[in-house]
Amino acid sequence: MSGASGGKVLALAGGVGGAKLALGLARILPPERLTIVVNTGDDEEFHGLHVSPDLDTMTYTLSGWYNRETGWGVAGDSFETLAMLKRLGADAWFNLGDRDFAMHIRRTQLLRQGMTLSQVTSELTGRLGIEHCIVPMSDQPVRTVLETDAGTLSMQEYFVKHRAGPAVRSIRYAGAENAEPSPGFAEALRSADAIVFCPSNPHLSVAPIMAVPGVRDAISGHMACRVAVSPIVGGDAVRGPAGKIMGELGAEVSAAGVAREYRGLCDVLVLDTQDAALSDTIRSVGMTPAVTNTIMQTDDDKIALARTVLQLVESAE
Amino acid sequence: MSGASGGKVLALAGGVGGAKLALGLARILPPERLTIVVNTGDDEEFHGLHVSPDLDTMTYTLSGWYNRETGWGVAGDSFETLAMLKRLGADAWFNLGDRDFAMHIRRTQLLRQGMTLSQVTSELTGRLGIEHCIVPMSDQPVRTVLETDAGTLSMQEYFVKHRAGPAVRSIRYAGAENAEPSPGFAEALRSADAIVFCPSNPHLSVAPIMAVPGVRDAISGHMACRVAVSPIVGGDAVRGPAGKIMGELGAEVSAAGVAREYRGLCDVLVLDTQDAALSDTIRSVGMTPAVTNTIMQTDDDKIALARTVLQLVESAE
Repeated sequence: MSGASGGKVLALAGGVGGAKLALGLARILPPERLTIVVNTGDDEEFHGLHVSPDLDTMTYTLSGWYNRETGWGVAGDSFETLAMLKRLGADAWFNLGDRDFAMHIRRTQLLRQGMTLSQVTSELTGRLGIEHCIVPMSDQPVRTVLETDAGTLSMQEYFVKHRAGPAVRSIRYAGAENAEPSPGFAEALRSADAIVFCPSNPHLSVAPIMAVPGVRDAISGHMACRVAVSPIVGGDAVRGPAGKIMGELGAEVSAAGVAREYRGLCDVLVLDTQDAALSDTIRSVGMTPAVTNTIMQTDDDKIALARTVLQLVESAE
Repeated sequence: MSGASGGKVLALAGGVGGAKLALGLARILPPERLTIVVNTGDDEEFHGLHVSPDLDTMTYTLSGWYNRETGWGVAGDSFETLAMLKRLGADAWFNLGDRDFAMHIRRTQLLRQGMTLSQVTSELTGRLGIEHCIVPMSDQPVRTVLETDAGTLSMQEYFVKHRAGPAVRSIRYAGAENAEPSPGFAEALRSADAIVFCPSNPHLSVAPIMAVPGVRDAISGHMACRVAVSPIVGGDAVRGPAGKIMGELGAEVSAAGVAREYRGLCDVLVLDTQDAALSDTIRSVGMTPAVTNTIMQTDDDKIALARTVLQLVESAE
């Protein structure tokens, strides 16, 4: 990477955890040096509206609108529209706030008018004052589908409706074979001097991105410094079902397990201080371990972790 | 009409004024004796959602959800979704509350799933506990278009965006030639023992209904007792731009002017006590005048006027 002042960073992210590190990166890097590519495997239609949970979490986080308590949705949002939809007979198990509904209404309208999801995302994030590029992984639909002991479930059905309860047997990314990286993602893949895997769920957030044709190969053979931050700390996910799913799919639920998932895709794995003992195992997988605090509670934590990641990139040159 | 206990009433209505009398009728007549046919010439797409202002006003009025102060929308509704849509760059001159949005979201979803507007309306009104039939005039789009000195405007552009300011030169009902009465309207036309023209705008609410092919002829030649309530009292509309538009189109702005608009369609015109002096003029148009209080402020007023209308029907047998 050509010095702290010049190199381009491609960050790959899912929802809440990924958005935290992305916020830190965005506080340090100017817009022209950062592209944030977001998983859209969780996208789903609710009430006839196109909902993009991870894009929205990223958008709300970077715009400062996000709900710090829940991690999703807009801070202080009300739920009148959803309550009325329930009265009107709609199946309303997915929580959508009134301000949040505006995002989905506007996105759906612009998509129906013929804009791509990339164009719509650029429009919506720009309107909320975000200067950094947030781009969907693809403009074509890719949907994460889980085979579970409660049947075939979409990501949101699994995560929200069933509260991540059913055991996961396998995961596929429907539609991936007909998708391609979004223009912003393709450009970032070409020009990146560093690739950062944010601390997101390897199977539900990062794997859908890797499932887009050409992405895995491009990253496997990339000359950029590639750094991942483990979403698994102390034997479980910092948040969400990543640990549970890794275990159900037969992986070791640890930063070492994450290292194995990302083998060939990453050069450096950032793991939490409490997992320092796993450093040798991570080296044995062929990755350089980097130990630091990875728990991001405050914005300062997010900026500090982002700074550490960028320093690792610098020192790897 | 076969007695107060048996005859069927078809009520034709637009928005607020019409909904008031319809509420009175619904408080007196059991569901099997009343069909309320509502103008859909005001329907418009906002934010990609199908909004049916008159159907909604009728629905909110009969369900008790309506805002008594404004006449439109849901009582106590909030406006978070619309405020956010404005932030996101949407053109948000048409006021839509959060609960109101739920109606439009659900309607749009069900229409996109292939239901007709009649089916959707039946579903939504049923969910809100309304037992009486509220039916759109047609399941095909008919749009009221005004040629004004500010250009060609849709009904909502004229009424809301331009606050009914521009002078109206002519009005047409686009799409009417390809429309047909909704199934519920067609059935009510066949079986009605009485037809009530609620006190709605003759040009913007009743004329679109008459523009649906076959309706004007069916009512002109109908054997039912046909009673209209004048929306013009004391030389102006009780509410809205009906008076202004009648004047601009060269009609007399009075109950007598209304009688002329409905010539051949109605047998009885109910006019307000303050217009009693117009009775002879109304007789000269070929209609029977009936003088009573037509200003409906309380629910009791609405029921009283509905009772008077039904008594006129009875006495005409």
